[in-house]
Amino acid sequence: MKVAYLLYDRFTALDITGPHDVFNNVPGIDSIFVGEEARPYRNESDTLSIVADAAIDEVTDPDILVVPGGFGTRALLDHAPLLDWIRAVDQTTTWTTSVCTGALLLAAAGLLDGRPATTHWLARGTLAELGAEPATDRVVFDGKYVTAAGVSSGIDMALRLATEIYGPEVAQAVQLGIEYDPQPPHDTGAPEKAPKEIVEVVTMAFAAQEAG
Amino acid sequence: MKVAYLLYDRFTALDITGPHDVFNNVPGIDSIFVGEEARPYRNESDTLSIVADAAIDEVTDPDILVVPGGFGTRALLDHAPLLDWIRAVDQTTTWTTSVCTGALLLAAAGLLDGRPATTHWLARGTLAELGAEPATDRVVFDGKYVTAAGVSSGIDMALRLATEIYGPEVAQAVQLGIEYDPQPPHDTGAPEKAPKEIVEVVTMAFAAQEAG
Repeated sequence: MKVAYLLYDRFTALDITGPHDVFNNVPGIDSIFVGEEARPYRNESDTLSIVADAAIDEVTDPDILVVPGGFGTRALLDHAPLLDWIRAVDQTTTWTTSVCTGALLLAAAGLLDGRPATTHWLARGTLAELGAEPATDRVVFDGKYVTAAGVSSGIDMALRLATEIYGPEVAQAVQLGIEYDPQPPHDTGAPEKAPKEIVEVVTMAFAAQEAG
Repeated sequence: MKVAYLLYDRFTALDITGPHDVFNNVPGIDSIFVGEEARPYRNESDTLSIVADAAIDEVTDPDILVVPGGFGTRALLDHAPLLDWIRAVDQTTTWTTSVCTGALLLAAAGLLDGRPATTHWLARGTLAELGAEPATDRVVFDGKYVTAAGVSSGIDMALRLATEIYGPEVAQAVQLGIEYDPQPPHDTGAPEKAPKEIVEVVTMAFAAQEAG
């Protein structure tokens, strides 16, 4: 089982390292970080670089594709080299997945037309404009397309996918290995749960970052 | 507020990107990834590299230090250059923190002597040998020393620390920004919760990785 993790400029690190450290704990999974070129890619806040060890033209047959989100997605919605590659590898993947606004790239590649899919809660409108049917679920399975909500949801997505592929015992062992027994200090992790004024603050902060 | 994230060979990516993507969403926080040298560092499974943008001798006054875990810690427990740097910056940090087996490095630097601290559940014995008093909590605050349990617990640690430093509203906004509304598919994220046979499988798998 080969998992390809796509990098691009202005990605979100936790979107991709969450699923990676889940799959990483499954024996027999190969991981490869890919980018349009094999080079370091900088995250959206310009604070961290992860290295793409391979260029996309070197990785043609991943079994699982993981596309992270990040403010950088907006500049790529008509970027043919990446969208063409996503479409090409999707022909033979067993699972094509995204976290957060990574769903916008899958949709821009035409893979989510008419499909239920999830994304960061602030990107649901954009996802709809790109042809998908936005859901508010944390993880959405639709055939081989698996989409996760914002940033941290990639951990849940990958654990659910590991359960589907390898069975519950393997996924349970992975969950114990990464000690995923979450104890969030607040109950504000979804817009339906957070106070209205917190939702407004985050909406404005993200709009400013997206503009920047 | 400057946060320094320490990298070394064979670290665990999620240990460090979890806290990073929490603090990253707090306005006014500067992040810097540091290593003994400014270069890419490879994770413990040899699948991913994160770049240290600065060498430790260039970063002398972080307000918050975050030390991740990984199988690479074991080779560093008497590695003077890193332990000396940890001790030096700890003199002026406001918070000195670790995730997973990062606590072993804080302990090896002598910072956790007699203090309650947590770490990955499989490393509690080693943490005790290094002079700390291992707790089974997911996050332990002891003065300015904040330690988190295995891998994924760094997200909870950073959200609790953001709550402490900036107040609940800021932390709630961050939690919504990263959509941290965890829905783990299993309830096996702690050794006290997982079936005995799952605990045994993970114990053996980690022993093999540690040996390797």
